[in-house]
Amino acid sequence: MGRLTGGDPSLLRRINSAVVLHALRATDYATLTEVTRVTGLSRPTVEGVVEGLIEAGLVVETAAEEGAARRQGRPARRFRFRAEAGHLLGLEIGPHRVAAVLADLDGTFLGTASKAVSETASADERLDRLRVAVADLLRRAGVARSSLRAVGVGSPGIVEADGTVRLGTALPGWTGLDLGERLRRSFRCPVLVENDANAAAVAEHWKGAATGSDDMVFVLAGLSPGAGSLIGGRLHRGFGGAAGEIGALHLLGREATPETLLSTTDKPLHPLDEQAVAEVFAHARKGDARAQAALDRFIQRLVHDVAVLVLALDPELVVVGGWAAGLDGVLEPLRGELARYCLRPPRVALSMLGEAAIATGALRLALDHVEEELFAVESTVTARR
Amino acid sequence: MGRLTGGDPSLLRRINSAVVLHALRATDYATLTEVTRVTGLSRPTVEGVVEGLIEAGLVVETAAEEGAARRQGRPARRFRFRAEAGHLLGLEIGPHRVAAVLADLDGTFLGTASKAVSETASADERLDRLRVAVADLLRRAGVARSSLRAVGVGSPGIVEADGTVRLGTALPGWTGLDLGERLRRSFRCPVLVENDANAAAVAEHWKGAATGSDDMVFVLAGLSPGAGSLIGGRLHRGFGGAAGEIGALHLLGREATPETLLSTTDKPLHPLDEQAVAEVFAHARKGDARAQAALDRFIQRLVHDVAVLVLALDPELVVVGGWAAGLDGVLEPLRGELARYCLRPPRVALSMLGEAAIATGALRLALDHVEEELFAVESTVTARR
Repeated sequence: MGRLTGGDPSLLRRINSAVVLHALRATDYATLTEVTRVTGLSRPTVEGVVEGLIEAGLVVETAAEEGAARRQGRPARRFRFRAEAGHLLGLEIGPHRVAAVLADLDGTFLGTASKAVSETASADERLDRLRVAVADLLRRAGVARSSLRAVGVGSPGIVEADGTVRLGTALPGWTGLDLGERLRRSFRCPVLVENDANAAAVAEHWKGAATGSDDMVFVLAGLSPGAGSLIGGRLHRGFGGAAGEIGALHLLGREATPETLLSTTDKPLHPLDEQAVAEVFAHARKGDARAQAALDRFIQRLVHDVAVLVLALDPELVVVGGWAAGLDGVLEPLRGELARYCLRPPRVALSMLGEAAIATGALRLALDHVEEELFAVESTVTARR
Repeated sequence: MGRLTGGDPSLLRRINSAVVLHALRATDYATLTEVTRVTGLSRPTVEGVVEGLIEAGLVVETAAEEGAARRQGRPARRFRFRAEAGHLLGLEIGPHRVAAVLADLDGTFLGTASKAVSETASADERLDRLRVAVADLLRRAGVARSSLRAVGVGSPGIVEADGTVRLGTALPGWTGLDLGERLRRSFRCPVLVENDANAAAVAEHWKGAATGSDDMVFVLAGLSPGAGSLIGGRLHRGFGGAAGEIGALHLLGREATPETLLSTTDKPLHPLDEQAVAEVFAHARKGDARAQAALDRFIQRLVHDVAVLVLALDPELVVVGGWAAGLDGVLEPLRGELARYCLRPPRVALSMLGEAAIATGALRLALDHVEEELFAVESTVTARR
């Protein structure tokens, strides 16, 4: 973590490159002399680094400003960072829809797209829908596929580091799917697959309810609840990508599943039947006692799961998303229970990004990946070519 | 996190200083020319940095090697890092003893000391015992108090960032104690106060059962169980220092405390009465059914608490310390339950450092603090003087 391995020349090249690129990005237009002065690097080092960055397409020499006062002799060459040098995609693959967000290397949004998909769709059908959405989006934005530098993906399930879904019961054919590999066939750039709740946590931190809160838990409340957490501003995935998979908590001495808790009859709801869930909510709002009781059971369970996460992680803030964000009265019992169990209860807020959270977080992860390549100074980073 | 803030001159000075110091530490003896070549920094930058490091006492010019072939003119000046430039203390303050470990800037142990203390001792008495142990240790090692660069402390309780104990029911007079401030009066260097289980987690990772495992949970099993965790090799404290304070888990729908679980009568054990606990363990070993039942209840509870932590954090490894490490048969039920609840159960191991864990971890935290000052390249670090 930032500790330098003494005398490793490739690491030092990376550091120098990051320093120069960051200086250029900060100043927009700079001369080699300015970069040398700002960075403390030697002139030959700066020249070598800038040359490499130009070859990589990340920096370009610009014409001398016409308006600048002419000094004697040749004007100094000026350079700038090319934000347009690449593009990024953030994708969501969910039970009922697929969605995509496109941005440039500064993370500026250039467009979005989404398509409905059946909850019973096979993995192939679901990925086909996604490809259509992406192709539409790139065409509309006039961005070539070859310009993509990284693609982030948020999807339900426990995801391995290589993008394989180890367990994903929410989508048909998802468990064991080599999702990363499948998507890499469509994109000639790194594809980063992330659990949907994890991606949403990143998004709420970037531009949602958790900006300014580096230690937060995002709860994606639904029939199969999941959670994502940031610790010190960084996503906490766990060693095997299973951190926050609180769906298994009900096994710890509790037999009830969300589907049974939310049912107003003897039969549990279907795990993906959000229509049935919406009806329970609607009935509860109309004063139906059975529906209200089902909703209370569900909220109580959600509150318990969140309390356990809070004791283990001690976040500053809990953001509630998924459908629970649309529930009346989910925040008050949550605040009450957390005050009971926690010495310093975290703040509790509803998601601000709603259904855009997952794709937005996936985009941020793609941007993080590119920024790490370009700007990060970390001894543990393995350079990728 | 390692991302550079473009054009911040004080940050760049810090980076350059870290690079030079690291190069010197790696090569033992180096000339300015060698440092310039290895780091890619300009000669004036290296000269300025080395001058600053000499002023700070961290680098010293050494005599030219007598055996080296004499070249024409004055031999090049050579410099080395001074590991003896400072010392570190790791302290444990526990219910029944206080302990101290002394090391140099490379973390090499120079001596240890410990003293028994009564579980009913007041905060003042406990701190006095600690001061005596430290004074003995420094005198025996021949190290001046003024040479201490940082002091780490491990103690039960939830500890604020400034070293105040927010809640510490295990020791009389501990809750609300400004422990950091009290110890800073004894030491003219940074004093870092840490929860005991957190310190032990760091120690097991440094030189115990968790070397090579950057994602681990340490469980300090006792009447008031606590846990510490490393995520990506870094200690996870939580936003308010309460992460892993699983003592409160029993409030979540369970009324039994460890003291009632371990009791063989209708009355709970005293929270700090480890003698009574040892008797229960001894009776169980001799085949006493009531004692065995009490032990089973305790282990079942411990296993449940660990399972919850594992679901939330998804570590690679769980290390069990505290007295549970001395229990026969705590690992097997733990492995069995984790296999039931977790998709990829973590490895489970017993503590290797035993009662040395807390002071050793506290020392490592002091060393981390000094290394961060000297070697770290982090945009978020605030320079301390």
